[in-house]
Amino acid sequence: MGLTFAQRLKQYQGEIEKALDRQLPERDCPQREGIDAMRYSLLGGGKRIRGVLVLEFSRVFGTPQGQALPFAAAIEMVHAYSLVHDDLPCMDDDDFRRGKPSCHKQFSEAAAVLAGDGLLTHAFITALQGGTCAGVPSGRALEAAAVLAQAAGIDGMLGGQIIDLAIEGKEVEAALHQRMCSLKTGALIRAACRMGCVLGGAGEEDQKIAEEYAEKIGLSFQIIDDILDCTGQEELLGKPTGSDAGQHKTTYVSLYGLQAARDMSEKLSAQALECLEKLPLPDRFLFELTGMLLNRQF
Amino acid sequence: MGLTFAQRLKQYQGEIEKALDRQLPERDCPQREGIDAMRYSLLGGGKRIRGVLVLEFSRVFGTPQGQALPFAAAIEMVHAYSLVHDDLPCMDDDDFRRGKPSCHKQFSEAAAVLAGDGLLTHAFITALQGGTCAGVPSGRALEAAAVLAQAAGIDGMLGGQIIDLAIEGKEVEAALHQRMCSLKTGALIRAACRMGCVLGGAGEEDQKIAEEYAEKIGLSFQIIDDILDCTGQEELLGKPTGSDAGQHKTTYVSLYGLQAARDMSEKLSAQALECLEKLPLPDRFLFELTGMLLNRQF
Repeated sequence: MGLTFAQRLKQYQGEIEKALDRQLPERDCPQREGIDAMRYSLLGGGKRIRGVLVLEFSRVFGTPQGQALPFAAAIEMVHAYSLVHDDLPCMDDDDFRRGKPSCHKQFSEAAAVLAGDGLLTHAFITALQGGTCAGVPSGRALEAAAVLAQAAGIDGMLGGQIIDLAIEGKEVEAALHQRMCSLKTGALIRAACRMGCVLGGAGEEDQKIAEEYAEKIGLSFQIIDDILDCTGQEELLGKPTGSDAGQHKTTYVSLYGLQAARDMSEKLSAQALECLEKLPLPDRFLFELTGMLLNRQF
Repeated sequence: MGLTFAQRLKQYQGEIEKALDRQLPERDCPQREGIDAMRYSLLGGGKRIRGVLVLEFSRVFGTPQGQALPFAAAIEMVHAYSLVHDDLPCMDDDDFRRGKPSCHKQFSEAAAVLAGDGLLTHAFITALQGGTCAGVPSGRALEAAAVLAQAAGIDGMLGGQIIDLAIEGKEVEAALHQRMCSLKTGALIRAACRMGCVLGGAGEEDQKIAEEYAEKIGLSFQIIDDILDCTGQEELLGKPTGSDAGQHKTTYVSLYGLQAARDMSEKLSAQALECLEKLPLPDRFLFELTGMLLNRQF
């Protein structure tokens, strides 16, 4: 109430960061090395967009923040795990992530495999414990956790990664590329919005609109990523640019060209904002968030 | 009712195998290759001990098999994922598993990373969907899924793997080795028994005894594994023997010698049977299962 957009965003990000730290505290135990590797890849970075969407959609539909927080933390853990495994030498072989050495560079390849496994598992520990303790009705908690699992799995993010691997170095049709992106990037963003709706007991119609909104921003987000990989500044992105072209990856830019990709992204943004008009929003937070996401320069 | 031990065991194993196949069907889709790798590592092998324990403890406490089956399948998926990632070149670097090429040998390293991730995620999809659909009260479903997540995580199986990695090639004290085994092998076996109890709404006292039983058979199981690695026949085990000694791994045999390890295992078996005496069992199935597990030659 009464918070500006920037204040609320900062409050969300701060609470998520604290929840992540609390859910996976530093500990002196024989597993310490593994926990350190998990914390290294989980904490202190990222915009926490997925977690913010969980918290915001929960607020829209009236769930107390404390009840939604474990689920916001859980989806950030799933996102973090996917980056750790994506960076592995046998996958994208990326040495840097957000301006620091990637997990397998900082620790070891084996440690990074286990850290990713640990983060994925910890996401479910966090969501399910949160579901048991935080006062969420257990039916809703179960459904929200199921939404997360499905979004992470073979018909979600992991499916996107599988397709990405299968098409590596090949010319790809636009439809398959679109599907890959919709799973790899889109699934978790859809899940974030949907988890917020489920926790808040949103009606089916509202849930559908929220998912449509998520679909639009997820795709637009990916297109902007591709554009920035061509045009962005390395220092701001915290990772090398031009890597997609160097690896002959199919991107929205390689498929449609820079200008058409920009147009697509703008059209998707406009459609996303239209979806928001149809939802019972208490204020302009989601409009501003959408604007921020889709006008980012890095 | 009326089934012999062998008949019931076969019924359980058959139902679990069918559930796994049903939960992860062959599909013609762009993700096919990844699904194939997951199915390769999940189906057609293994004794399904963890799943059998879920089903049996559910039966003991009165849960219909159909309600417990998704959880039995889920724990087998977690077990399968752990083997796929354990075999990776950066981990144990094992080329064979159950007499066939390990996942990364049959497919690729990247495919094996994703297949493991997929199996772990699919375990939670399966448990949570099962919890939503199969008529299990949602509080119990939530708790059973949480038990699985915790048992797979940093204070469970994964914690054991982290410790295993940390102590690689080092001389290890018996206490730390014991802890590693209790997590790496024991945690999932304890979770199997506990999930069955939770689903059936067992009382706290019975649940404790069931976990104590699981602790005993888990440890005994590990000791027998170590003994068989020294003495077993390669053809029967489906993997090379003597590998522990070759890698200078700390095992119960290296710590205590062959005879003392045998004595420990027998003592644990006897204690496990004592636990069973205290539970309200409908027949001798768990006694016979325990005998079978702890007298195995391969």
